[in-house]
Amino acid sequence: MKIGLEHVGDLARGAAILGTGGGGDPYIGSLMLRQAIRDHGPVDLIEVDALGDTDFVVPFAMMGAPTVLVEKLPNGNEMVAALRLMERYRNEEARAILCAEIGGINALLPLVLAARCGLSVVDGDGMGRAFPQLQMVTYHICGVPLSPMVMTDEHSNAVLFECADAADAERFGRNLVVAMGGSANICLYPMRGSDAKRSMVRSTISLALGLGRTIRESRSAGCDPFDALLSYLHTTPYYQHCRVLFEGKTVDLLRETKAGWALGSVTVEGMRTCVGRQLDIQFQNEHLVAREGESVRAIVPDLIAILDAATAEPITTEGLKYGQRVKVLGISAAPIMRSKKALEVFGPQAFGLKEPFTPLELLNPEESR
Amino acid sequence: MKIGLEHVGDLARGAAILGTGGGGDPYIGSLMLRQAIRDHGPVDLIEVDALGDTDFVVPFAMMGAPTVLVEKLPNGNEMVAALRLMERYRNEEARAILCAEIGGINALLPLVLAARCGLSVVDGDGMGRAFPQLQMVTYHICGVPLSPMVMTDEHSNAVLFECADAADAERFGRNLVVAMGGSANICLYPMRGSDAKRSMVRSTISLALGLGRTIRESRSAGCDPFDALLSYLHTTPYYQHCRVLFEGKTVDLLRETKAGWALGSVTVEGMRTCVGRQLDIQFQNEHLVAREGESVRAIVPDLIAILDAATAEPITTEGLKYGQRVKVLGISAAPIMRSKKALEVFGPQAFGLKEPFTPLELLNPEESR
Repeated sequence: MKIGLEHVGDLARGAAILGTGGGGDPYIGSLMLRQAIRDHGPVDLIEVDALGDTDFVVPFAMMGAPTVLVEKLPNGNEMVAALRLMERYRNEEARAILCAEIGGINALLPLVLAARCGLSVVDGDGMGRAFPQLQMVTYHICGVPLSPMVMTDEHSNAVLFECADAADAERFGRNLVVAMGGSANICLYPMRGSDAKRSMVRSTISLALGLGRTIRESRSAGCDPFDALLSYLHTTPYYQHCRVLFEGKTVDLLRETKAGWALGSVTVEGMRTCVGRQLDIQFQNEHLVAREGESVRAIVPDLIAILDAATAEPITTEGLKYGQRVKVLGISAAPIMRSKKALEVFGPQAFGLKEPFTPLELLNPEESR
Repeated sequence: MKIGLEHVGDLARGAAILGTGGGGDPYIGSLMLRQAIRDHGPVDLIEVDALGDTDFVVPFAMMGAPTVLVEKLPNGNEMVAALRLMERYRNEEARAILCAEIGGINALLPLVLAARCGLSVVDGDGMGRAFPQLQMVTYHICGVPLSPMVMTDEHSNAVLFECADAADAERFGRNLVVAMGGSANICLYPMRGSDAKRSMVRSTISLALGLGRTIRESRSAGCDPFDALLSYLHTTPYYQHCRVLFEGKTVDLLRETKAGWALGSVTVEGMRTCVGRQLDIQFQNEHLVAREGESVRAIVPDLIAILDAATAEPITTEGLKYGQRVKVLGISAAPIMRSKKALEVFGPQAFGLKEPFTPLELLNPEESR
């Protein structure tokens, strides 16, 4: 299919839900994507199976703190520069662009890059959500090397990393992102079509589009957008388990931009069906865990999304403020994200949390709205 | 000429003097150079005029805190890896290796790299001394671009920087050096033979050899090594003005390894001709300024060297400790290092010092020993 101007709003809204609070503000990304489509025409979205096994494909993302992204804007040229340096270094032209994560701005910018370079985007990503670190992708879990990685900034600086270890690339990259002012563009995990086929979380761009469209259409029809959202999620291959975990008002917010991340927590005081209760959500760019007192309601890699209680518009961590009326959604992660090997890389312990991973549907056996 | 095993000790000693306290401990470098010469034979030292104008030549150095260098040893392979990535990126084979600085270990390691790769080393460097930052070289002053720069560590990590601005390369590189543990290998300012001819401080490897030899021979002959040293310096094209500024005992030392540098100061209490007086020397890897009370005795880019009072063996900042009997030598920098343009890059203000640059020979009009 072709992604045109009419799809941008839906994609941005859906990606903000799948970003689980992180992935960067999709608003800026949607402005950039609209401009790119106006300049270069609709973007070609292809299935991963449409790739040849030897096709050279390159994932693209922004790295850094989402709190920085909303003030330090990309100019677009640095995205193209990153791809070009990767191509020059590998002495090969890219056939298509991949998403590293389907969350927030990182669902939109790969399309901007593809539009500017006349390339296709593959429908899917490397996590089916957003995560704060470079090794936290299925590409890594499936043995695709992270290096070479190219990082560029808006001042025409470009840096290429060859690291034997993905954790070194994350550590070096994070240091450089901070030196570049808190955000930067990266191309990483360059791979063959055959690698993409075995490692991608498939069809997540379509799913984000569907999520966004569902909310928009339910609003126009005057229906409860949450009912529509849950019904839609049940039809997807990954996100079958989903719950409205909580409803209330944000009454406390701690947020700091530190070491290249947005770190903090938000407290939601219960309203309506949740009166007298309190939910605490801790985040590192993305929401990591939602707790009621000592009791865990949802935990990474399962998704935790905060949405406006009336309109179901997703709220990213940098958009949180005091007094917002919200509903908190828990959504099961894709099965590939819950494997033992996957949990070692982005399960609760990878974030220093004490609680073990327990699937959302076990923590919340009863469907509740 | 050929640099053989018989030259290593002289070169290391001379380079430690020209390193003005920094440039990294030459002891480790001399062990590595001896090994390289044993394995690959003597190193070919050529004059810069022997280069063809289009020859591709690459300066090499270690970057980081000298205090780290003495504990975190290079394995040698990372030097070759740095050169190979530069060659691959530029799609061109290097004809010769250049020194970035003639101070300390950085006078020796380019010879190690050249020996391992079967290349020549050009007699000269980019400052006629040592300096702590990447833009502080005559290559930069003369308009040779710093980028591309390659940085490697002993864990097979390699990073390539393309920065429009030398200050960005220094800032990004410094961040990465800290992430790599405090020291790393760099190839930078890749250039043509014609650029080397117009920008190098010439013949400084020969000068370092001569300095080291002079001290060694004067000791064997039972003469005062300082007399011999000053006589030799007067015969050189760069270091004509030189003074023994002070003689005494180190009585206070502040030294910390921070942000990728060795920072601090040392206090020398006067002895013999200097009884009742006190000299304070401030350093950032290299000695920056020597003061008696409010009065400046020598200041960057002029050279300040601390030597053992009896043997004239140079003492690097990381080798300083309480109670050393020392003589402090002031040596004029090469004329190219004292130009207005040069002083903007590595004069006192580039290090945050308040005092203006005043030539050593004006600060100390009378020859004194």
